[in-house]
Amino acid sequence: MQDKGIELLISQDTNNMNYLTGYDAWSFYYTQCVIVHVNAEEPLCFVRAQDAGGAYIKTYLKRENIIVYEEKYIHTWPMHPYDPLIELIKKNKWDKLNIGVEMDSHYFTAYCYEKLKQGLPNAKIKDSDRLVNWARLVKSESEINLMKGAALISQEAMKVAMKTINPGVRQCDAVGEIQKSLFYGTKEFGGEYSSIATLLPTGKGTSASHLTATQDKFVEGEATIIELSGVYKRYHAPMARTVLLGKPDQLKIDTMKKTIEALEMGISAVKPGNTADDVAQAFWKILDKYGIDKKSRTGYSIGIGYPPDWGEHTLNIYKGDMTVLEPNVCFHMIAVMQFGDWGVEASEAIRVTETGSELFCNMSKELHIK
Amino acid sequence: MQDKGIELLISQDTNNMNYLTGYDAWSFYYTQCVIVHVNAEEPLCFVRAQDAGGAYIKTYLKRENIIVYEEKYIHTWPMHPYDPLIELIKKNKWDKLNIGVEMDSHYFTAYCYEKLKQGLPNAKIKDSDRLVNWARLVKSESEINLMKGAALISQEAMKVAMKTINPGVRQCDAVGEIQKSLFYGTKEFGGEYSSIATLLPTGKGTSASHLTATQDKFVEGEATIIELSGVYKRYHAPMARTVLLGKPDQLKIDTMKKTIEALEMGISAVKPGNTADDVAQAFWKILDKYGIDKKSRTGYSIGIGYPPDWGEHTLNIYKGDMTVLEPNVCFHMIAVMQFGDWGVEASEAIRVTETGSELFCNMSKELHIK
Repeated sequence: MQDKGIELLISQDTNNMNYLTGYDAWSFYYTQCVIVHVNAEEPLCFVRAQDAGGAYIKTYLKRENIIVYEEKYIHTWPMHPYDPLIELIKKNKWDKLNIGVEMDSHYFTAYCYEKLKQGLPNAKIKDSDRLVNWARLVKSESEINLMKGAALISQEAMKVAMKTINPGVRQCDAVGEIQKSLFYGTKEFGGEYSSIATLLPTGKGTSASHLTATQDKFVEGEATIIELSGVYKRYHAPMARTVLLGKPDQLKIDTMKKTIEALEMGISAVKPGNTADDVAQAFWKILDKYGIDKKSRTGYSIGIGYPPDWGEHTLNIYKGDMTVLEPNVCFHMIAVMQFGDWGVEASEAIRVTETGSELFCNMSKELHIK
Repeated sequence: MQDKGIELLISQDTNNMNYLTGYDAWSFYYTQCVIVHVNAEEPLCFVRAQDAGGAYIKTYLKRENIIVYEEKYIHTWPMHPYDPLIELIKKNKWDKLNIGVEMDSHYFTAYCYEKLKQGLPNAKIKDSDRLVNWARLVKSESEINLMKGAALISQEAMKVAMKTINPGVRQCDAVGEIQKSLFYGTKEFGGEYSSIATLLPTGKGTSASHLTATQDKFVEGEATIIELSGVYKRYHAPMARTVLLGKPDQLKIDTMKKTIEALEMGISAVKPGNTADDVAQAFWKILDKYGIDKKSRTGYSIGIGYPPDWGEHTLNIYKGDMTVLEPNVCFHMIAVMQFGDWGVEASEAIRVTETGSELFCNMSKELHIK
C-alpha cells in the first residue's frame, strides 16, 4: 500500500476478503468489503447485519472490527450500502486520504464507485491495480497443502466423470455423480462448492469452452470436455480432460497428442527465474510446428476461488506476460483448442518449485476413448 | 426504453442477457453484454472469441449479431474488452446517443463504466434502473412451467437433505447427496447448477444465513438450516427449511410455529392489486403480536438465476415497497429469523394467481425434528 501511495484500501473482491480476514459465506451477491488502513492493526470487515453472525464465526477479527450495515439497504435503490460505508469513512476521518479501490473486480459496481466519488469529494480514489491479488500470487506452504487436498478431490471427481459419461446417459445425471464426488472428496479432505460450475460441453458444444450440462443425453461418437475443480477451504486445483465415446477419431486423437506435447513443452520451461512468457513461447513453439492456431491464453494463476472465477487475475500464461516465476507460484495451464464446430481440452494445475515444477494432479491427459 | 429516454441499452446482467437472447454459459467471469438499440430488429450479443461457439448454439440471434472481441483482452489490463465495445459503438454511429447501463449490476464494474465515459464523451450515459429486471417481473406461462419443473427438483432435494442430515455425518457428504439430487432432478426435469450454493448453516451457524457446508459433522441436539433451489433451464424455485437433530427444543419449535403463522398471514395477503407492502404488513403484524423483532426483508422476486443471486433485484417483500402484485409475479417469501447465536428459517416460492396465490412447492414448513 505504501509503495502504491494507498492509505486506505477498499477491497470488495470476495477472494481478497477471504485472504485478508478469513470471511467465507455466500453473501457476495450484494455489497460487502474489507477496509484496510495502512496503519491499522486489523482490517475492518463491512457486511450486512444478517451476515454479522457469519463474520464472527469465520473471520479472525475482533468483534469491534466487524461493522454491519442495516438491512434496509438491501436492494432498495437509491438507498445503498455505500451510504453507511461513506459515513464510516468520514467518522474515522479517512475522507481526505488516498483511497485504493478494485476498479475491475467483480461486484465493485459502477454504482459503488459513483457513490464513493460523490460521497468523498476530498478523497483521492485510485485503482489498486489488483494489489491484494498480486499479494496472493506466491503461496505459503499451508496454502499449498490446501491445494494438494483440492487436487485429490479433483482426481476423484474426474475418475467419476470418465466412468459415468456414456452414450444414453443424461448430461445432468453425470454432473450429479461428479458433484457428489466433489463434495464427498476424500476421507481427509471434504469438498466444497466450486467457484465455476462443472463445465461439460459435448458434441458441437466442444467448440465452446464454457457450456454447462443440459438434460440431453451423451451421443455415441461424440466428444465431451470435462472441466472441474476440487475445492478445499476455498482453494482450487482445476483440471480439464476430454472423453470420446465410441469409434476413435484420428483427427481428435492427433490434435490431443499435439496439444499435450505443447503443454508438456510449456511445463518443461517452468522454473524460478523464467517468465510466464517463456512458458508461453515453449507451448506455442510446438503449436507452430504443427501449424495449429490458438489465440487465447494458455493459463492463469490460481488459489482461492469464489464464483464466478477461480483465476486470480494476475499472471497469464500468454506471450508478452513478463511476470517472473517464483517458487510456490501456482497456475492452471490449460489448452482450450477450438476448431470451428469441435474442440479438445486438457490442463494441469502446476506449482513452481525451487528447481522446476510439480503437478498437483496425476492423471493422463490423453483423449479418453471408451 | 422509449419511456426512459434510452436509445441504446448495454445490459451486462447475466440474467438479463439470458432473458434477452437465450445466451447461457459460464462465461460471465469477464466482460460480456447484450446491446439493444431501440429501433433494432435484434439485440447484439458481445462475447469473447472463445465463447462465440456457445453463443451460436445458445442464442436465437443471427450470426451477424454475435460480435466477438479478441482473446488478447482477457485480464490484460490496461487493455480491456470495453475498448473494442467502444469501437463497435462508434462504428455504428451510436456514440452520441442516450445510453442506458446497469449501474449496480454484478459484473458491470467501475472499470467498465470509466471506459465508457472516457471512450464516449458525447454520449449521455445513465442508469437504466434495472429496466430489463422489471420487464422480467411478470412471467409468461412458459416461464411458470419452467419454475414448476424447478420446484419439483427443489422438493426432491429437500427430502434428500432431511433424510441425509444426521448426527455424525459430515456436512459436505450431505451436500454431496443434495447436489446429486438437484442435478438428477426428475425423469422429466433434469437439474442444473444453482445460482446460489446449497446454504447449510448449522449449530451456532444458524445465527447467520449464508454459511455453506464444511467437513465438520452434524451434532446431536443442533439445528441446521437448508436453503436450496432446483433449477430448470435457469429458472429457480428456492426453498428453505430447518431440521433439528435430537431432543425437541421448545423455544425453537415455538419460534418456528410463530414464523410459519407470520408467513401464512403474509401469503394470505397475496393477490392482484395488493402491494408487496400489504404482504409485509400482514407478516410483521404476527411478529409484532409475539414481540419478535426482524429487520431484514422477507422476500424478493425470482425467476432466472445466475451466480451469485437468484433474486431479481426488483420487488422486495418489505414494508414500504409499494409494487403492485399482478398475476404471474413470482417471489421467494423467506423468513430468516436470527436471535443472537441461533436461528430458524422457512420459505415458500410463490406465484400470484388471478385470485390469490399458489405455492410452487408442497412441503411442511414445520421444524423437522429427528
